[in-house]
Amino acid sequence: MQGKAFQDLYPEEYSHCFGCGRNNKHGHHLKSFWSDDMNTTIAKITPSNIYTGGVPDHLYGGLIASLLDCHGAASAAAFKSLTIGNKFDGSEPLVRFVTGSLTVNFEKPTPTECELTVTAKLISIENRKVKVELALLANDLVCATGEMLAIQLKDI
Amino acid sequence: MQGKAFQDLYPEEYSHCFGCGRNNKHGHHLKSFWSDDMNTTIAKITPSNIYTGGVPDHLYGGLIASLLDCHGAASAAAFKSLTIGNKFDGSEPLVRFVTGSLTVNFEKPTPTECELTVTAKLISIENRKVKVELALLANDLVCATGEMLAIQLKDI
Repeated sequence: MQGKAFQDLYPEEYSHCFGCGRNNKHGHHLKSFWSDDMNTTIAKITPSNIYTGGVPDHLYGGLIASLLDCHGAASAAAFKSLTIGNKFDGSEPLVRFVTGSLTVNFEKPTPTECELTVTAKLISIENRKVKVELALLANDLVCATGEMLAIQLKDI
Repeated sequence: MQGKAFQDLYPEEYSHCFGCGRNNKHGHHLKSFWSDDMNTTIAKITPSNIYTGGVPDHLYGGLIASLLDCHGAASAAAFKSLTIGNKFDGSEPLVRFVTGSLTVNFEKPTPTECELTVTAKLISIENRKVKVELALLANDLVCATGEMLAIQLKDI
């Protein structure tokens, strides 16, 4: 992983997300980065054991969806920003995306209190629409996969 | 809405979900019920303003997905339990489902600090697989829609 977190390059007024915004003091503060080869984006987080699913020690589905959602939207912003010459050094903010649709496939139970890795790869960029392919891994096992259509906001 | 909440009819050991489990003291405690005609299921919740999205006053996508996930799995359990004669009076637990896949379409910004209504309708039941159609409304406006494939656990 390298450089600044994408969420730390969002415009100030778009940084309130409970899942990943630096201006939300209550939230999860997920941070997404480029892989070293800049082909993939990566976020790591270790959810506490309060976020259990139906049974103890398994993460609840809502948080899995949340992590994919925040990382997916941040990755869409990064992939699009890269195409328009953003340097990712803080000299200019990223363009900002919101989720149009998100599909999550729950492949295996995901443990709590374990470092999770969330990844995204670019599928396509068509003007303001970016599609990314998502995965969530625990102990190198793929626990969830997903796909997002993200939409670039017009006003920033 | 009528009767007991589906989540209060889950087996004790499957009631730890952060989103909706009665045995998770930290969680959201979403409660899902039958509509009066038992054609639809309904949950109502008013998220606090800490759960903001990118901008203040809009709910973050992760919580929208979480609410659809918990309500969808509870509704799948209810629709299947109805077909096998469960009386929904607490005399026996519901069968228990987990999410196989969930798609969320974010249609409009969803406000925080506003009573949200989450609904589910049955699409199909095929043995242990139940599909439901989901919606999330604020002030009678549909803010998100979705679809879930839920899988019945074998061991309960």
